Amino acid sequence: MKVAKMLGERFKNAPKDCVIESHALMMRGGYMKYLANGIFSLYMPAKRIMRKIEQIIREEMDAVDGQEVMFPVVMPASLWEESGRYTSIGSEMARWKDRSGNPMVLGMTHEEAAVHLARDTASSYADFPFMIYQIQTKFRDEPRARGGLIRVREFTMKDAYSFHTSQEDLENYYARVYDSYNRIFKRCGCKNFISVQSDSGMMGGNISHEFMLLTEIGEDTLAICDCGYRANMEAAEVNVTNEPGEITELKKVSTPNVKTIEDLTKFLNTDEKKFAKAVVYQKNEDDTYVIVFIRGDLEVNETKLRNYLGYEIHPATEIDCNSGIVAGFIGPVGLPKNIVTVFDKSLIGIESLVCGANGPDYHFTGMNMKRDVGDVSYADVAKTFAGAICPKCGRPHIHIEKGIEIGNIFQLGKKYTESMGMTYLDENGERKTPIMGCYGIGVGRLCASVCQESHDDYGPIWPITIAPWQVEICSLRADDPEVKEASDRLYKELQALGVEVLYDDRDIRPGAMFADADLFGIPLRAVISPKSLAAGGVEITTRDKSLKENVPVENAAGWLRDKVTEMLKSAEQTKGD
Amino acid sequence: MKVAKMLGERFKNAPKDCVIESHALMMRGGYMKYLANGIFSLYMPAKRIMRKIEQIIREEMDAVDGQEVMFPVVMPASLWEESGRYTSIGSEMARWKDRSGNPMVLGMTHEEAAVHLARDTASSYADFPFMIYQIQTKFRDEPRARGGLIRVREFTMKDAYSFHTSQEDLENYYARVYDSYNRIFKRCGCKNFISVQSDSGMMGGNISHEFMLLTEIGEDTLAICDCGYRANMEAAEVNVTNEPGEITELKKVSTPNVKTIEDLTKFLNTDEKKFAKAVVYQKNEDDTYVIVFIRGDLEVNETKLRNYLGYEIHPATEIDCNSGIVAGFIGPVGLPKNIVTVFDKSLIGIESLVCGANGPDYHFTGMNMKRDVGDVSYADVAKTFAGAICPKCGRPHIHIEKGIEIGNIFQLGKKYTESMGMTYLDENGERKTPIMGCYGIGVGRLCASVCQESHDDYGPIWPITIAPWQVEICSLRADDPEVKEASDRLYKELQALGVEVLYDDRDIRPGAMFADADLFGIPLRAVISPKSLAAGGVEITTRDKSLKENVPVENAAGWLRDKVTEMLKSAEQTKGD
Repeated sequence: MKVAKMLGERFKNAPKDCVIESHALMMRGGYMKYLANGIFSLYMPAKRIMRKIEQIIREEMDAVDGQEVMFPVVMPASLWEESGRYTSIGSEMARWKDRSGNPMVLGMTHEEAAVHLARDTASSYADFPFMIYQIQTKFRDEPRARGGLIRVREFTMKDAYSFHTSQEDLENYYARVYDSYNRIFKRCGCKNFISVQSDSGMMGGNISHEFMLLTEIGEDTLAICDCGYRANMEAAEVNVTNEPGEITELKKVSTPNVKTIEDLTKFLNTDEKKFAKAVVYQKNEDDTYVIVFIRGDLEVNETKLRNYLGYEIHPATEIDCNSGIVAGFIGPVGLPKNIVTVFDKSLIGIESLVCGANGPDYHFTGMNMKRDVGDVSYADVAKTFAGAICPKCGRPHIHIEKGIEIGNIFQLGKKYTESMGMTYLDENGERKTPIMGCYGIGVGRLCASVCQESHDDYGPIWPITIAPWQVEICSLRADDPEVKEASDRLYKELQALGVEVLYDDRDIRPGAMFADADLFGIPLRAVISPKSLAAGGVEITTRDKSLKENVPVENAAGWLRDKVTEMLKSAEQTKGD
Repeated sequence: MKVAKMLGERFKNAPKDCVIESHALMMRGGYMKYLANGIFSLYMPAKRIMRKIEQIIREEMDAVDGQEVMFPVVMPASLWEESGRYTSIGSEMARWKDRSGNPMVLGMTHEEAAVHLARDTASSYADFPFMIYQIQTKFRDEPRARGGLIRVREFTMKDAYSFHTSQEDLENYYARVYDSYNRIFKRCGCKNFISVQSDSGMMGGNISHEFMLLTEIGEDTLAICDCGYRANMEAAEVNVTNEPGEITELKKVSTPNVKTIEDLTKFLNTDEKKFAKAVVYQKNEDDTYVIVFIRGDLEVNETKLRNYLGYEIHPATEIDCNSGIVAGFIGPVGLPKNIVTVFDKSLIGIESLVCGANGPDYHFTGMNMKRDVGDVSYADVAKTFAGAICPKCGRPHIHIEKGIEIGNIFQLGKKYTESMGMTYLDENGERKTPIMGCYGIGVGRLCASVCQESHDDYGPIWPITIAPWQVEICSLRADDPEVKEASDRLYKELQALGVEVLYDDRDIRPGAMFADADLFGIPLRAVISPKSLAAGGVEITTRDKSLKENVPVENAAGWLRDKVTEMLKSAEQTKGD
């Protein structure tokens, strides 16, 4: 490919809305073009990277016995009604009616389609286990598209679905995919990534992991311990130790206009860890109040709360004055019975708590949960924090990092097979419901994540395995017949050797050509100029600046081919099964 | 891949709605599953075929300097408003509103997206020409989905867009793509296909060709002459010769209750070729009447009429009795002025015509167009027919065939670049509008078309270039240790040699296994059984039954690899540039 004829513009200044480097560099490098909020077209270099990532994923999915299939983008609403998600999923799902008035949806995930494809076909235990996957376009009407390809509305995704006859078999297969994912990300050139326990969200199921590329610009927050414990903050269990203190008398104290925890600690001269703080939410469906009581120094994790309650909630914006709730003075003693209360387990073991007295300007001190509230069950709905006690090793070593989710795997259980009536006959001729797992990777996000991890100020530094081309020829002084001849020759020879080569023979300043080459981020660069020829031939450098060498023109193609082979080999060491 | 674990069921009887063989065989063979009207999921064998077809297309597009890009499936309506197609296209386009209330559409073609991607980037004449293409999912809300993958609502399509600075350059490039298409279809194994001149329809532009696979089940009708002339009936020029007859007096004749041409020919004892038949249409927009006068033995081609008028029309269902139109007795003499009339050129040269007299139970005879109606312009809106005069060689040799459209190419002109404001600076610094071409191939339809052309009663006979696998091993009597050992060995050896192999080692009856194998349609079959081993080794046959050979087990893998190579080589002779 010649740069002169390649569509796409490279420029110096990133568009204003680019707040992260990978987005800025991929816009500046002519990789993509904004079409609408969260919707991009891709130019040739990005498409080539995507195809290579897809091929790596495909090889690894095939290596774990995956069968590549294809589900439709457009599906009838009736299919989603079978699983119940047509109503349980909100406005992220695009909905419309076809010419006959049938309600349709755009696929944002394909569990329903996978069960549909499998259910009448896999009818005997002998047909199991199996895994089907596709690499296909999806649409999710994200409220907060951001970061270029990091969070978009339309995206290419590999989604895989496995079917099993026992939890044990699912777990064994899940472990194979887990390893497969590690290989995929390594082969794509990801360096600093980890897997974390995660919240299953709308997918349902229990055990799930996310693969996270650690980076400051990540929008996921992770709780990590050096013992190996890793969890998404949305799923991280929170353990604290409490000073029990002494059991004292429940005492109503006048606290005029003292509403915040901070003011109260001063006013009562007590540690905030002695407070049962109240946080008020409302059920989305009917605005019922839900009050969470939690240790004064901690925050509520809304995802954990939502999972605990089993329904959608939102922070209460205004409190009805007839509800019996007195903002700033809420406590568990004497609260109206119709209000849902949740007690976080951070309150366990404190004998004497401070809390609101449910009347203006009054608090209780000496509140003892068991004595004054009774036997309640405690939930884990707190947000983890640096220094929290690790649920695995028990030491207060949790630290917090940021990450981009580059893949996820779920043990779905029977959520979809049961609701959609998929069954098989087991060894004894009994009808059983299969167990599912599902496994996703966003191709565009992975591409942007690699760029985010692997770039310098001047452009991406693409790993050889997914680089749009393997070698770029920069022909400086195209008007010099010797330069032109050597450049054309190298271009032809590399093509003949099967090396993927981009050829820049434009009559432009060296500075402009190199700036473009940095934005293309191609691993190997061959510069041919009067100077390089005088020095013996072709000046070969790597994009990461680890190598610089002058090779005679007649040897350059072979040298480059060998170098590409060597780089690919070293990068592909992790290739699957 | 082992058949035992492959998802998808094969069965004997085609579903009732399968009226064509390829649809029936692809359903019976476990290639796809119906999800909704015109929407299918694909199982592994179909996906593999599709990917091979895509790769052939990709190679040929790259060979004509195409740049693979990616446009979104979901686009904002505003983009389609720029070209005017948001309103000009009807209910075939899926429309919906996103969570912010923005009107969105699903891409059924991508001219607008192509101009959007190119317009700010290709700004100098030196950037031209270029071609961009994608292979992507499209949705078209077809009112008449039919024939399995032949006519669906959701489909995978290769669509390509070229941009030029002169008509001459477009024509040169168009010719290259024309050749490229011939190569693609040949490489995919199409045999009996031709290109025809076509109607450009909603794409706009003038010159266009369709590639048609000739088959009785095709829904396109083609006018073909042995001189080389080929046109879609919707675009075919119609030439007839007329007996002028004598000029006679215009005479009003009572024809009580004689309304049809057939009755009239008897009543007046005249040839229907002497009639100016009236056919009544209405403009879709406002129901204005449009009356076409055409020679009595000919039919109106509505597509040609639509193109001539420049607006949408439909056959008049009921005629307003106040309109001045008297059904059954319509003629050009004395018709109310507010009615649009179109005269087909088949009326030219007949001096004395029979026509309605615009009153109940009366016709005119002796009607002379020039004398009685005046100078009118004639249009070509007739439907061609067997025996029509060929527009190319002038002989009455037109014959009619049926075909499936497997690809199309259009010279679009400036329709999109002009409406969407794409310009460039030419050599003299003047601002000019580029000229476009566009080029489409439906991947799924091509797959089904090949199956339609290449099958027997028992299943598809896939060409080696697109077959889901190259070799199938049928291991009969899996319980026999010798058979099992030889089969496993061949499977492993073929895989090691890079041959794509499907392995059937199920413990089922030979008849059932062979029936499945016929449905898989894999070019080479290696049968291993006690009988074949006794006869010397592996019984190798081709799916098309042209070969049958017994090869020793130890040589079988190498023999099959060589055979695959030979078959591929002979099929790939036409490979591009």
